[in-house]
Amino acid sequence: MPRQVDHAQRRRQIADALWRVADEQGLDAVSLRRVAAEAGVSMGLVQHYFASRDEMLLFAMEAVGERVARECGAALAEMADPGPRDRVGVLLRQWLPADEQRRREARSQFAFLVGGVGGPAGTFLRDGMAMLRAHVEAEIVADGHAPDPRGATTILLALAEGLSAHVLGGHLAPEEAGAALEAGIASAFGPA
Amino acid sequence: MPRQVDHAQRRRQIADALWRVADEQGLDAVSLRRVAAEAGVSMGLVQHYFASRDEMLLFAMEAVGERVARECGAALAEMADPGPRDRVGVLLRQWLPADEQRRREARSQFAFLVGGVGGPAGTFLRDGMAMLRAHVEAEIVADGHAPDPRGATTILLALAEGLSAHVLGGHLAPEEAGAALEAGIASAFGPA
Repeated sequence: MPRQVDHAQRRRQIADALWRVADEQGLDAVSLRRVAAEAGVSMGLVQHYFASRDEMLLFAMEAVGERVARECGAALAEMADPGPRDRVGVLLRQWLPADEQRRREARSQFAFLVGGVGGPAGTFLRDGMAMLRAHVEAEIVADGHAPDPRGATTILLALAEGLSAHVLGGHLAPEEAGAALEAGIASAFGPA
Repeated sequence: MPRQVDHAQRRRQIADALWRVADEQGLDAVSLRRVAAEAGVSMGLVQHYFASRDEMLLFAMEAVGERVARECGAALAEMADPGPRDRVGVLLRQWLPADEQRRREARSQFAFLVGGVGGPAGTFLRDGMAMLRAHVEAEIVADGHAPDPRGATTILLALAEGLSAHVLGGHLAPEEAGAALEAGIASAFGPA
């Protein structure tokens, strides 16, 4: 068992190093070699965990998804009987770059977006957005007050993305973005 | 007079080349030398028009602003007595990456955003967003139906940014983004 823990920790440590490289040097700079250097481990060790750059990128993206899921789970556990609006609120609040780690991830994800990622990481990103869209739409349907759940989902997810971009660009304070997101959620779900 | 026309045309030709370099090779790759090569002119000619990389970047951004202003002016000239909603609609529709030139500019602007541009171009970008915000808010105030023009402006501009990002990322068809933008404008201005 301790070896398995080590394994998972190592992979996360490498994923964290990958995000730092992507953030500081750009996505094109991400290679097994540079990530190894950033993580302070040998190239051989990185290759032991990841057969290719694609596999490493994919894992790093999955790690973000898992962290988001974990933090959402923790936030929901503190709520009494959360409904669709609460669940979507918890999820989308994660999107706003509130601390340095999330800023780094958000910057890298915009870099993916503008760079047009191919390979498994690109597929993961597109599938992830499609799943997020389906999930939010299903919650809006479950809530049952929005006349056009699909349209409301498109607007709400674009709003969250744009607020994130404007916080990153320094155009918006995180608190203003947070308030705008709450208003957007209320508007997407319709009058309760 | 012909010489002045040549001058303006040359500068625009160089600005177009700059956006192509930024889009294909990233913002860090933008230099007087590479832009000259892309434009098919000599380094000396580029230096004749621009004293520095910063000056060239700033001009390229101003050129986008001028194109947007020109196209908005043309769209508004075709409308009979446009009001605040029409004017904001015309302006924000320009934001969506509907053709290859706008896609290229939008990708580069996201690169600026995530890269955190310094120098005069960064100041221009931040001032431009602040001016856009003030302008849209003033139009919403002039329209007179929104209870919270400032909050409505924050939401509307973030929505336009996010829709642009989702079109660029291939998550949204331009028509869906267009429909969501119209709904967002109607919602920002409030019931007419």
